[in-house]
Amino acid sequence: MGRWTPGARGRLQRAAFELFAERGFEQTTVAEIAARAELTERTFFRHFADKREVLFAGQDELTARMVAALADAPAELSALDAAVRAVEASTEFFDGSPDGPRARQAVIDAHPELRERELIKMEGLVSAIAEGLVLRGVPASAASLAAASAVAVFRRGFERWIAAEQGPDLARCIREAVAELKAVVAGG
Amino acid sequence: MGRWTPGARGRLQRAAFELFAERGFEQTTVAEIAARAELTERTFFRHFADKREVLFAGQDELTARMVAALADAPAELSALDAAVRAVEASTEFFDGSPDGPRARQAVIDAHPELRERELIKMEGLVSAIAEGLVLRGVPASAASLAAASAVAVFRRGFERWIAAEQGPDLARCIREAVAELKAVVAGG
Repeated sequence: MGRWTPGARGRLQRAAFELFAERGFEQTTVAEIAARAELTERTFFRHFADKREVLFAGQDELTARMVAALADAPAELSALDAAVRAVEASTEFFDGSPDGPRARQAVIDAHPELRERELIKMEGLVSAIAEGLVLRGVPASAASLAAASAVAVFRRGFERWIAAEQGPDLARCIREAVAELKAVVAGG
Repeated sequence: MGRWTPGARGRLQRAAFELFAERGFEQTTVAEIAARAELTERTFFRHFADKREVLFAGQDELTARMVAALADAPAELSALDAAVRAVEASTEFFDGSPDGPRARQAVIDAHPELRERELIKMEGLVSAIAEGLVLRGVPASAASLAAASAVAVFRRGFERWIAAEQGPDLARCIREAVAELKAVVAGG
């Protein structure tokens, strides 16, 4: 989701985002990404199936981190608190600046097919968190509602985080979205 | 979403669902659907762009009804209550029996590309409800959380409704999902 990992993979990601921003997503070729990163196309394809995957590779890692955080969360936490603990693991994943994630989101928002793909990934995240909650002994129905709520909170917090140039950090945006969800649901 | 409207459209929908159940979605052709409904292919294409659209035509109507119910909801309702009022309008849309919706869901669940399409429609529903809430004066951020919560409740209630052969009706399934959401969020 925009965080640059070190080495060839990170260089390819950075090069891809620069080119997407400069020329647009469609106009950028894998050859150009590899050239900008001073690597070969072959190296590109060792890391990514296609240029679209540069945008989504991080999301799988993010989901894995969230699921791991859920498994590590104290047993006494409620379903929602545990699910929120999972989405809060995103704050370690992102390196502090919203610039990379903002650039990525701009590319995605400009392309309906990329938005659809992101939506499918988000649904995968809801399912992964719900499954993790069931493993903690939460009934399936409460697990699916807690997971959907936590992901709604994450999306809202993330959106706010990348919207502001000098805004609060992601952790605070998520905490505020949790408080807002509680107010909305208690008020209903 | 599986409710049969009267006339040619309803006959085509019923014929399509029968054939999807008997032969599978891929193996069913538009020519066969039209023949089963005792109508021409030309009539089919007057109502639906392709056989996939038979599955999703109802969902647009459902979204429109929900948005209308939201606009009609009393001004004093909280954001969540108003959003729940919207998704409760689904109970008028479905005709009482979960058999049609269950048959439709079985086709969709068996095909990843149809599940993706449904997911995109659900996201469209979240956006439509959030926009409706903003028109009622709810701040954008609370509107998106209330809309996401109401749609999570709808999905959970709908899932439960179609799961049971002799279970509670959809209205009750939705009410119970609302109560469950409140318990999950208050407990967190």
